[in-house]
Amino acid sequence: MTADPAVFAPEDTTRDDFLGGRVTLHQPRRGYRAGIDPVLLAASIPVKEGQSVLDLGCGAGAALFCLAARVPGLALTGVERQPAYADLARRTAAEAGWPARIETADLTSLPASVRQESFDHVLANPPYFDPVGRQGAEDPGREAGLAEETPLEAWVEVAARRVSPGGTVTFVHRAERLPDLLTAFDARLGSLELKPLLPRTHRAARLILLRGRKGGRSPFVLHPPLVLHAGEHHEKDGEDYAPAVEAILRRGEALQFSA
Amino acid sequence: MTADPAVFAPEDTTRDDFLGGRVTLHQPRRGYRAGIDPVLLAASIPVKEGQSVLDLGCGAGAALFCLAARVPGLALTGVERQPAYADLARRTAAEAGWPARIETADLTSLPASVRQESFDHVLANPPYFDPVGRQGAEDPGREAGLAEETPLEAWVEVAARRVSPGGTVTFVHRAERLPDLLTAFDARLGSLELKPLLPRTHRAARLILLRGRKGGRSPFVLHPPLVLHAGEHHEKDGEDYAPAVEAILRRGEALQFSA
Repeated sequence: MTADPAVFAPEDTTRDDFLGGRVTLHQPRRGYRAGIDPVLLAASIPVKEGQSVLDLGCGAGAALFCLAARVPGLALTGVERQPAYADLARRTAAEAGWPARIETADLTSLPASVRQESFDHVLANPPYFDPVGRQGAEDPGREAGLAEETPLEAWVEVAARRVSPGGTVTFVHRAERLPDLLTAFDARLGSLELKPLLPRTHRAARLILLRGRKGGRSPFVLHPPLVLHAGEHHEKDGEDYAPAVEAILRRGEALQFSA
Repeated sequence: MTADPAVFAPEDTTRDDFLGGRVTLHQPRRGYRAGIDPVLLAASIPVKEGQSVLDLGCGAGAALFCLAARVPGLALTGVERQPAYADLARRTAAEAGWPARIETADLTSLPASVRQESFDHVLANPPYFDPVGRQGAEDPGREAGLAEETPLEAWVEVAARRVSPGGTVTFVHRAERLPDLLTAFDARLGSLELKPLLPRTHRAARLILLRGRKGGRSPFVLHPPLVLHAGEHHEKDGEDYAPAVEAILRRGEALQFSA
């Protein structure tokens, strides 16, 4: 692995549309590129106009800007350890006219300006793979976006500290990390809600969305799953998303846990 | 609450059919009566002919005898704290000719004969409701079957101790207890698998089945839910179970987590 670049050269980046063109994101041509996960995460945040949002490990800003495009007047803060990704997020925000504050920092050593603030909603799409015993991605930025160098519990700990009383913390993660994630949430947050994301009706969940509320006292809810693809098998060319998912990904609709 | 009766008078019991008549269970007329939960639990145990099974808190034996009816030649052990329920389980076993050993004991003080043994499969349908702040059921037996006097973690601890290496522990519980149950399982067992049971397709889970394997090393799997009732609403008289559930409840078929 080479050192993290401070910025990407323009020829090493692409501009990619999300939410049917409502968001145009600067992303590295190679490296960590957003899939549907941060888009679904953003769609699931129960955020209201004018509220404050903190995205831990925001990368190039996919989740943060999908939120900005869906709900007006948000106070957006992103924290990203890799300078070149933070730089891309700043570029996207500036071009779209979103007044986002993007801090280049490790989540375990947040700048004072973030540590002194609390947020209505905190979200995260943490790296998915345990670096121990894993063949790393060749691209160091992609590796940092995928490999789990900071323990998952530390992500939840920081999120729970930074959220306001009554505010929400929402993570998207691989389904197989549910035991660790749920244990970490349950120790720090209340009113937990789990939304499984199934690739197809009769398949095991690939992803999960987990939400907790600071000081929440409602019982845990295991919601019906969101099924990403219609049918039992891949039947035609293209991405073949179920209509409800298409509405989220292409028309910027909210993802309701209870639907 | 009055003291637990040692036996139920014959006029205080009923004989109830399960699995389309494959099991006829002696149950108290009033008190804790089995619903579909222990039947679904029994259907989900990946048990093979001739293996040993321990049911913690077996009550009148619904789960244990549904297992016996589905798979021949099992070595059946049930532990039940309430003497009158244990007595009913013994009566059912004797009439059906199933060589079940039913011990009257609290799970936190198992008899030596059970403590010295390990089992291929351990199952439990623990009491569902926290006794603190709860209006108790009028019937003391029903209250003991419903109220959670022994902490859930103790149930999992005993189950994990009594299961053989490579054997399974499976619990059915209310969905809202998933955080506690998953945390307790994750600390003691591996290869965890969660099966949500949804009342209808777009409703939150009411029940969960959680399985772990002693010494298992496979990643956690969140399986697609089993949907109990067809349609979005209750549309006709009767129980209206989905065909796959009808097959489990009436024809004694197995409940596959992956289906």
